[in-house]
Amino acid sequence: MSVNQREFGRRVLLGEIRKHRRIARINLADHTGISRATVTTITAELLREGLIEEVPGDSPERDGKRGRPTVDLRIRGAAHLVAGAKISNRTISLVLLDFEGNQLADHEVILDQNVFEAQELAGELATHVEVLARKIDRQRTDISGLGVGIAGIVDAPRGFVHWSPLLDQRNVEFGRVLSDALSIPVYLDNDANLVAVAEKTFGLGQGHSDFIVVTIESGVGMGLYIGDEIYRGTRGCGAEFGHTKVQLDGALCRCGQRGCLEAYVADYALLREAMIASGDKDGRPVEALLRDAQEGDAVAKSIVDRAGRMFAMGLANLVNIFDPELIILAGEQMQASHLYAEEVIEAIRASIVQIDKAPPEVVIHKWGNLMWARGAAAYALDNVSEAALAEMADHAG
Amino acid sequence: MSVNQREFGRRVLLGEIRKHRRIARINLADHTGISRATVTTITAELLREGLIEEVPGDSPERDGKRGRPTVDLRIRGAAHLVAGAKISNRTISLVLLDFEGNQLADHEVILDQNVFEAQELAGELATHVEVLARKIDRQRTDISGLGVGIAGIVDAPRGFVHWSPLLDQRNVEFGRVLSDALSIPVYLDNDANLVAVAEKTFGLGQGHSDFIVVTIESGVGMGLYIGDEIYRGTRGCGAEFGHTKVQLDGALCRCGQRGCLEAYVADYALLREAMIASGDKDGRPVEALLRDAQEGDAVAKSIVDRAGRMFAMGLANLVNIFDPELIILAGEQMQASHLYAEEVIEAIRASIVQIDKAPPEVVIHKWGNLMWARGAAAYALDNVSEAALAEMADHAG
Repeated sequence: MSVNQREFGRRVLLGEIRKHRRIARINLADHTGISRATVTTITAELLREGLIEEVPGDSPERDGKRGRPTVDLRIRGAAHLVAGAKISNRTISLVLLDFEGNQLADHEVILDQNVFEAQELAGELATHVEVLARKIDRQRTDISGLGVGIAGIVDAPRGFVHWSPLLDQRNVEFGRVLSDALSIPVYLDNDANLVAVAEKTFGLGQGHSDFIVVTIESGVGMGLYIGDEIYRGTRGCGAEFGHTKVQLDGALCRCGQRGCLEAYVADYALLREAMIASGDKDGRPVEALLRDAQEGDAVAKSIVDRAGRMFAMGLANLVNIFDPELIILAGEQMQASHLYAEEVIEAIRASIVQIDKAPPEVVIHKWGNLMWARGAAAYALDNVSEAALAEMADHAG
Repeated sequence: MSVNQREFGRRVLLGEIRKHRRIARINLADHTGISRATVTTITAELLREGLIEEVPGDSPERDGKRGRPTVDLRIRGAAHLVAGAKISNRTISLVLLDFEGNQLADHEVILDQNVFEAQELAGELATHVEVLARKIDRQRTDISGLGVGIAGIVDAPRGFVHWSPLLDQRNVEFGRVLSDALSIPVYLDNDANLVAVAEKTFGLGQGHSDFIVVTIESGVGMGLYIGDEIYRGTRGCGAEFGHTKVQLDGALCRCGQRGCLEAYVADYALLREAMIASGDKDGRPVEALLRDAQEGDAVAKSIVDRAGRMFAMGLANLVNIFDPELIILAGEQMQASHLYAEEVIEAIRASIVQIDKAPPEVVIHKWGNLMWARGAAAYALDNVSEAALAEMADHAG
């Protein structure tokens, strides 16, 4: 068994144990095709490193040969603390997990600004990660890794933010700024990608290799799994959906371009139209507009309907291009319910290439900021596992 | 060395020899990381099977130890004949390659119909593949595999045509119909995918892992490489581009839906507008319209310009979604030159998400039907190689 094979085997077995939560050695061998002898060797190493632990087996049977109780393996929760953060418009949401993925604490804080200098935002995050850790009588530096999801265009492997609505500068090495400020490893990604990670790890994406998650908040985001991997593009800005164009020379978008999907479906886009129609310069909250539309106000209905049809058109284009198994519409905001309407899903079906095979499933998954933060934590969990295995490779060879 | 490892090793080494055309055993070991001993064993098997052959080495040096001339390995061209066919609007284009990829013959035939019953089209193809083989005094059944590219929605692994403009029925197991009619293995795919295979094997996609090929003929096609693999989607109808929507409730498309990109950029779309403007019911050839536009006719220019801008918008959306390294615009028709204009490429750059990093390269590759057919042949070559290796695995273990 070469060094590479052993490293590969450790990764596969740790992943398999995580997937099953509890599993006997013999089943590990069956599921992975790795020989029983190698499973025994590698799991002994993982036990020695404290990454996994033995627990009494679930099975009522006893080991036939010697009559001993069966033993399962599971991830050792105490091995590492990991945290996840979602930084969104005026909110930081945080969760703390053990290495097995169990949630130990959460914390949410309202910010008093929309836009930050990078150091300043890092300082905020450092403070509140400390608060999070204190909730279980630990401290920030006890955390082995923090995943952070932020809106914008993020080159995740480099921790580089091309642009984010939350930062007052473009081109920030925000991953490095954060890990310097927090003194722990930080894994930064676009927030919609981390929702996709959350769906894959805990949610509706479990068991799916190819699916799309579309998120609706103040902007429209997308996370994309292709072949069980998050698709990131070649310059670190792939899977952009909100700024795909749905109208040539169309409505002006916050990004400065015209005809972006966001410029038709985001809250500000709806309110822009509502203001014109009502002559009301102060505007109304978007909830009022949606209520008016539901109550049959013709102008409000026209505004909301067009947003839904534009959204359906954008989603149909994704289906045509990717032909995914599954599309998950995720978001916490109840005010996006007009985009989750049955008419919208019908319009998607009517606009995709018609073949005599069922269209992809479209499911709606409403959840809160803490679930986004769990996605960020799941991303950290992957990275902390990788780091732990790399360390084993260094000293165990 | 397990059976799987040996099979894997054969595949890797055959691919590496194909890539380098000529290569010494020692370099094979260096490039692949496979041990010299295993390279010696496996190449001996490949030589025994007649898939590769030895040729005098290029290197002027001699083998130090024994003073023998150096020996290179190369694919044995005579091992297999493979053919490729492109079936397009009223044309079948065919090429015949040896197993090394050298072109031995070609043949092109004009059809007298636009739409065929499946058996009838298979009969035409069988006749002309026979003509092709006769050109080098062989016969159709000497061919080990035929790749076929056809416009439409094709589930390639199943050889299943959901829909093609060339067939009078939907849902045809056209791959099976063809292999029955020709009595040789047939590998069917969407024609734009096979242009992408051609670009990857012989063209501008060599050395790129992630790129998009957009083809312009009577329709607009797309082939997509992600991570060195053709992306096919989960229902076998992925990477559809011509029928993505660029306008809500827009122009009627031949597919029956509204607002498809094709309904703005295909020849028929331009002529539909030109007819309205001129009142000329007979219409003009599209070349005349393009000439008028170039000569400054305002209406013609308006028609052609909008097509270019719609095309740019569609391409910019692909860049936003995929963030590819490279976009290849491929097609043989000089009349698509308005879509290849510098203004179009500028408009793409202006509509993609702006980051401070160079946009993906957009290159134009004009080529004829025979190059498309070479793509089909390259696809057959891959499949024939796989079949040959699978056969070795069966009897060599």
